Amino acid sequence: MASTAGQVIRCRAAVAWEPGKPLVMEEVEVAPPQAMEVRLKILFTSLCHTDVYFWEAKGQTPLFPRIFGHEAGGIVESVGEGVTDLIPGDHVLPVFTGECKECRHCKSEESNMCDLLRINTDRGVMLNDGKSRFSIKGNPIYHSVGTSTFSEYTVVHVGCVAKINPAAPLDKVCILSCGISTGLGATLNVAKPKRGSTVAIFGLGAVGLAAAEGAKIAGASRIIGVDLNSKRFDEAKKFGVTEFVNPKDHDKPVQEVIAEMTGGGVDRSVECTGSVNAMISAFECVHDGWGVAVLVGVPNKDDAFKTHPMNLLNEKTLKGTFFGNYKPRSDLPAVVEKYMNKELELEKFITHEVSFSEINKAFEYMLKGDSLRCIIRMDA
Amino acid sequence: MASTAGQVIRCRAAVAWEPGKPLVMEEVEVAPPQAMEVRLKILFTSLCHTDVYFWEAKGQTPLFPRIFGHEAGGIVESVGEGVTDLIPGDHVLPVFTGECKECRHCKSEESNMCDLLRINTDRGVMLNDGKSRFSIKGNPIYHSVGTSTFSEYTVVHVGCVAKINPAAPLDKVCILSCGISTGLGATLNVAKPKRGSTVAIFGLGAVGLAAAEGAKIAGASRIIGVDLNSKRFDEAKKFGVTEFVNPKDHDKPVQEVIAEMTGGGVDRSVECTGSVNAMISAFECVHDGWGVAVLVGVPNKDDAFKTHPMNLLNEKTLKGTFFGNYKPRSDLPAVVEKYMNKELELEKFITHEVSFSEINKAFEYMLKGDSLRCIIRMDA
Repeated sequence: MASTAGQVIRCRAAVAWEPGKPLVMEEVEVAPPQAMEVRLKILFTSLCHTDVYFWEAKGQTPLFPRIFGHEAGGIVESVGEGVTDLIPGDHVLPVFTGECKECRHCKSEESNMCDLLRINTDRGVMLNDGKSRFSIKGNPIYHSVGTSTFSEYTVVHVGCVAKINPAAPLDKVCILSCGISTGLGATLNVAKPKRGSTVAIFGLGAVGLAAAEGAKIAGASRIIGVDLNSKRFDEAKKFGVTEFVNPKDHDKPVQEVIAEMTGGGVDRSVECTGSVNAMISAFECVHDGWGVAVLVGVPNKDDAFKTHPMNLLNEKTLKGTFFGNYKPRSDLPAVVEKYMNKELELEKFITHEVSFSEINKAFEYMLKGDSLRCIIRMDA
Repeated sequence: MASTAGQVIRCRAAVAWEPGKPLVMEEVEVAPPQAMEVRLKILFTSLCHTDVYFWEAKGQTPLFPRIFGHEAGGIVESVGEGVTDLIPGDHVLPVFTGECKECRHCKSEESNMCDLLRINTDRGVMLNDGKSRFSIKGNPIYHSVGTSTFSEYTVVHVGCVAKINPAAPLDKVCILSCGISTGLGATLNVAKPKRGSTVAIFGLGAVGLAAAEGAKIAGASRIIGVDLNSKRFDEAKKFGVTEFVNPKDHDKPVQEVIAEMTGGGVDRSVECTGSVNAMISAFECVHDGWGVAVLVGVPNKDDAFKTHPMNLLNEKTLKGTFFGNYKPRSDLPAVVEKYMNKELELEKFITHEVSFSEINKAFEYMLKGDSLRCIIRMDA
């Protein structure tokens, strides 16, 4: 790969020319990495709801043409000036949020919300010079969340790259770049259920199932799945969900149903839907005295979380998390090791696989609600 | 004292005959303790806002005639059947909430909200037989929050009695029965600020000042007091408050003022007012990533805590506490030791002292906002 270092690479990328329209496979130019940047050869990428959300661009300021994609695995092709902890050939996961290791957030043990490299969904250019590294015939194509992995090569800030065990299969661990780590970390790092405790998971999509998997790993005795789609329960059993509640089946609020099932409430809850009503239920369904509710889902701009303060005064705790509180560079390598040590199953999240040229199929699977994760093979 | 065991004791008590009217000094009969009860000779009691609140009985179902009082220090006079860990002569603090040591809450390390003996403000009788131990000429007088310390003798469930170091001066440590421990524990047990961190305290009454004292003990570098009464700042300095913000002095919400003062928010906040707007400000003024807000104040019945869920998703934590998360029997003896070891100053909370016969003066001081704590000497 040394032969391409310092040169513009021409390769295939799936470009979103306008909101909600199928991606178009194009030949793009990928400029060499600048200071504190690395250029990656992407081998596998997968599709996450957030890509679909920004691709649809409903109610947003659209930024097009753009290259989406942020769950991926790849290999460092070349590094820019000042990059010392990555070399060409390293196996890596690019991540939509970064870790500069210098700011107050990175220095805090409690936070992963890096001041410099925190997710920015409106920025389509690199930090270093405010420009894109992608172009087609000299016309720039915007980046997305600093990763843009729907391209055979991409340029990423070094702070958004986790170096992982080269023995890890990238077609599996690539899904740790976003949703799966988010759900898993929400439970393991934030909710922290004790062995034998009860956990409610709101929303049984990929993130919720990863949260359930976290509860299973933590040794929860009961894992109550809550979803408006009862069909999801069957699949959820594979992720440790032991009981199922569909709020539509009950006349009373689901928090009351759960309180009755559990003698006063669950020990922990994790909300993975983004619905503000689910957030309120997830909070109110935890047991007084020690219950902890963790919010993961991203709400609408105008939502208000509302509850009676007595719910707090009776010693319930309410927390939110971002990327499961994982610091991408410091913590993701260990999550990959969890998979390598068979403490974490990733295969069951991967329901579909398509070649890069069929990338629009991955969008279709997700829009239909058929897939958990669809792996996109870049070499096909 | 052995001579009175098993007998009805006649003594003085300050009886509230009707809401909001001065207490009347009466001779009452105090029945012997029944199973799992102890009879205490009260030596000192102090007045807390909660007494005033239930005495005023605004918007409540009034329960009168009643003997109020729940911050006190005394000596065990006699014990009922089944009481094994207290004997006559023990020095104790009666507490408005209990610890049965058997329920899930008592067995949990995280909670002090005993299922059996949790505060009950509507019950005016003993648990054992549903009757009062107080009477005047055979007519029962109701108890209040299981303590009724405005009486020279009172009967209390053994689970609501903390046995303390007999060397501790009861005229000082009696204030640890409620408000001071509540504020102190909110900071030390729940907010847990690290050394060098920034803490905002909302409400500079006795509870808020105790919360500030906790922040000082924890080694906070900046303690920002927030109160609508600027006069309180002078006194607050004695409790470690280093800066003062009066929300009335600013056009923007106080959470924004605090965020500007602290480069994005305080590390911890403790809300001790009961105003739901203060609760919202206290939550929103903590730093993203690691900020923890603790609610202590008791809100109105119809209040709603409201915030945008993004405030949670950016990794702020919201908690409430009850009695500072102290388990009364297990934990209060150590708080008394903190005072004995000069790690905690109590004298500065005690602004007034009156004899029992002048108890109505204590109400006047509090209603005027003049006092933090007024000690009532039962022997005078």
